[in-house]
Amino acid sequence: MAEIKKIKPSLPKGTRDFLPEEVAKRNYIFDTIKRVFRKYGFQQIDTPAIESLETLEGKYGDEGDKLLFKIRSNKNLLDRPEFVPTLKERLWEVYPYNFLPAGSEKGLRYDLTVPLARYVVQHQGDLAFPFKRFHIAPVWRGDRPQKGRYQEFYQCDADIIGSTSLLNEVELTQIYVEVFERLRLKVIVEINHRKVLEAIASYFGLTVNFESFTIIIDKLDKIGWDKVVEELTPLVVEHLALEALSVKSLQRFVFDIYNGSNSWFDVTDKLYKAIPPSDRWREDTWKGIISTLQEVLGKIKFDQEKVKLNPYLARGLSYYTGIIWEVVLDKNKEENKAIQMGSLGGGGRYDNLTEMFGGRDMSGVGISFGIERIYDVMEELKLFPADLGETTKVLFVHFDEASEAYAFEQLQKVRALDIASEIYPGKKKLDKQMNYANDKKIPYVIVVGGDEMASGKLTFKDMASGQQEKLTIEEIIEKLKGN
Amino acid sequence: MAEIKKIKPSLPKGTRDFLPEEVAKRNYIFDTIKRVFRKYGFQQIDTPAIESLETLEGKYGDEGDKLLFKIRSNKNLLDRPEFVPTLKERLWEVYPYNFLPAGSEKGLRYDLTVPLARYVVQHQGDLAFPFKRFHIAPVWRGDRPQKGRYQEFYQCDADIIGSTSLLNEVELTQIYVEVFERLRLKVIVEINHRKVLEAIASYFGLTVNFESFTIIIDKLDKIGWDKVVEELTPLVVEHLALEALSVKSLQRFVFDIYNGSNSWFDVTDKLYKAIPPSDRWREDTWKGIISTLQEVLGKIKFDQEKVKLNPYLARGLSYYTGIIWEVVLDKNKEENKAIQMGSLGGGGRYDNLTEMFGGRDMSGVGISFGIERIYDVMEELKLFPADLGETTKVLFVHFDEASEAYAFEQLQKVRALDIASEIYPGKKKLDKQMNYANDKKIPYVIVVGGDEMASGKLTFKDMASGQQEKLTIEEIIEKLKGN
Repeated sequence: MAEIKKIKPSLPKGTRDFLPEEVAKRNYIFDTIKRVFRKYGFQQIDTPAIESLETLEGKYGDEGDKLLFKIRSNKNLLDRPEFVPTLKERLWEVYPYNFLPAGSEKGLRYDLTVPLARYVVQHQGDLAFPFKRFHIAPVWRGDRPQKGRYQEFYQCDADIIGSTSLLNEVELTQIYVEVFERLRLKVIVEINHRKVLEAIASYFGLTVNFESFTIIIDKLDKIGWDKVVEELTPLVVEHLALEALSVKSLQRFVFDIYNGSNSWFDVTDKLYKAIPPSDRWREDTWKGIISTLQEVLGKIKFDQEKVKLNPYLARGLSYYTGIIWEVVLDKNKEENKAIQMGSLGGGGRYDNLTEMFGGRDMSGVGISFGIERIYDVMEELKLFPADLGETTKVLFVHFDEASEAYAFEQLQKVRALDIASEIYPGKKKLDKQMNYANDKKIPYVIVVGGDEMASGKLTFKDMASGQQEKLTIEEIIEKLKGN
Repeated sequence: MAEIKKIKPSLPKGTRDFLPEEVAKRNYIFDTIKRVFRKYGFQQIDTPAIESLETLEGKYGDEGDKLLFKIRSNKNLLDRPEFVPTLKERLWEVYPYNFLPAGSEKGLRYDLTVPLARYVVQHQGDLAFPFKRFHIAPVWRGDRPQKGRYQEFYQCDADIIGSTSLLNEVELTQIYVEVFERLRLKVIVEINHRKVLEAIASYFGLTVNFESFTIIIDKLDKIGWDKVVEELTPLVVEHLALEALSVKSLQRFVFDIYNGSNSWFDVTDKLYKAIPPSDRWREDTWKGIISTLQEVLGKIKFDQEKVKLNPYLARGLSYYTGIIWEVVLDKNKEENKAIQMGSLGGGGRYDNLTEMFGGRDMSGVGISFGIERIYDVMEELKLFPADLGETTKVLFVHFDEASEAYAFEQLQKVRALDIASEIYPGKKKLDKQMNYANDKKIPYVIVVGGDEMASGKLTFKDMASGQQEKLTIEEIIEKLKGN
């Protein structure tokens, strides 16, 4: 590595290093989620970061396509000595992307869903269906970096492919509740169903602009009713030939069925009754909502404080065809009141996932955890345990070569019991060695000097309390095992 | 996702999907290694897949630079409405790579060492030194894909930065031994030291072409002595003005000191005595080898069957300055004899790691595990445990809606104890449900039908033996806890 010009170390915008403590905290979140996924029978898969552009392009809309990171390698056809380039191939050198043969272009994956679709079709014969998989991995988007938005970030998804049973919806809801309980985050798992939104729209005779309609009413939380009515008016007037007044009646309608009683059964019941019996949506809605949500959620004694129907929740309606989830901080809880944070998770049921790759139609349903945001909230609320289980338990410090050798021998006894332990390597002043323990948050230090070697009683120091006592290595090991 | 043309699902060459069972096996290797790393006080870090090209280029030689994957995003300056491009920037559109402003080009990381150097300099103030870190992550190289060689593959490194203490060499050797013991792979950890190779070269008066010399003698294992002598002759004749005969004496020299006795102390002792006392290398070598390897390895009662000095081991001599490790299958063991496989790990001490990023000189020493190869060998030797700990323990199967609902309730009791368990979602014939258990290698199945609901005694089937018995859910839970 000679003759290298010195450069200032830096990272591309929108990317991050993780310090050891940050990795330990992220692992705590990942491991908690993984344990719950596995408990419910989900299996981990992995796919490469690099996919063919053909696989990625056209799946995320025009805006998404623009955010794809494209890849080329220098090592191309032209490097091969036996290769005589054609004119087209020469031009490729000038503008590589236009002249690459189809299929040889690559990009970094943009999410974990399109790779899942490709994976399911490609490995159909090797998978057990219904296929319950989870995937935790980085994805890349060429978005303008800003606070909390990165170009490289992790996604964490669990999906069930190839089963329309409503039990899947129930179990995914249970997973949401259990994971956030384990992380000690107080959240509300909001649920809606595409058919609820369709029923509301239908009640007002809305047959076009369904997505625009749902996008507006979804903003209720953020902008309030007056603004929603304002935004909805032109849409309703223009396309439904209804008076603005009708929007007011929509407001009353939604308010009435969702009056804060938090009773699921009330809400669905009112919704059913509010829709005129003549309306074709009424029976669909009844089946869609009652059978999907009420009946099924009734089976688990779901906590109505934690799982709520939100009939104006709209999310991903360009692809979700059934249930829709969104997890938000419970703002009724004191500790969450000061925290500004968007949703911590979301999901839904989607049909025809695998169609784009020529697979037979398979319905899928899945949830995802916004682990970057979960991290930020847990940090703000100081919810990470003090001991993340990844830290060294004890450090041996010493004064000279003889005590270092002696300490090294004692260390072997501690390690024989699989207790994470270290010796400070090399000769340094004692305070430097103690600083090392502090910097690494090592809770116990064993001091070895001439006295200790003579008596066989080592100085065992509790770094938190500062207390120290003289103990044999066997006594110390007993203490460490108990911790 | 409407109007998407159907495409055949495929992956770019040199990349791989991992099926659930493969992920579980890879996790088994990763987790085993991580546990040992943490036991020895190493902390996990992470860095982004994407680095500035400035960070990557020039670090891996000309051939390495060619293998870098370069990245661009479509979303560039030109997309911003307020941006009026200069001529240079317009040209960038035509040939993006030549006209990107310095520092804005990106690439995928090629290894974990250069990112470590950047990381250490960048976060110096936040790290505890000596900095003991491990990193397990994918890297990318635009190599021609072939059997066992991928464009995206994992590296797994542990390094200690900022300490010249020989204890580090000892502990890294211990880690190698412990990890491979835990994986039940019978290997030899071969050790050499740059100074041993320099001593041998010096013995023959070789002062130039040191690297060429070491590359040739390193091939001994593969090509045998006759070929080595043949390759060495022109080098020796040309640069040392020695007769080809001298090469024969080199052979004798190396054979004599490394005569298969496998005794470390013999080898180093002979090496010391073989070098003329007048040679300046003699004392250096004595210090270099004896103090680095013998004295230090003497402290741990290292297994001379597992850790061996190989004085002609040459690896990474363009950067290693002290100890050199290489782990190979122990070909004396019966089970390994039929297996063709290169090294399963390697490492060494390197000085000036951080120099290229303007950091103060810090010595580093590290080892890496070739996890892709370890996987292949373990697969071939059938060393993965049958239960990788990631599989569902029990599956509930059922006959109709009533038994499904009943089974779902019982399932909640099993899950309350954190036992990984599932219910087959939806109505399918019993044999289909049983196939699901077989495909996922679920060891136990609970059958729930009318009889079971009436008696409260469920049919509990052991899928391996085919035996089944009628038990209450409480009795089943007791059995599952015991497994």
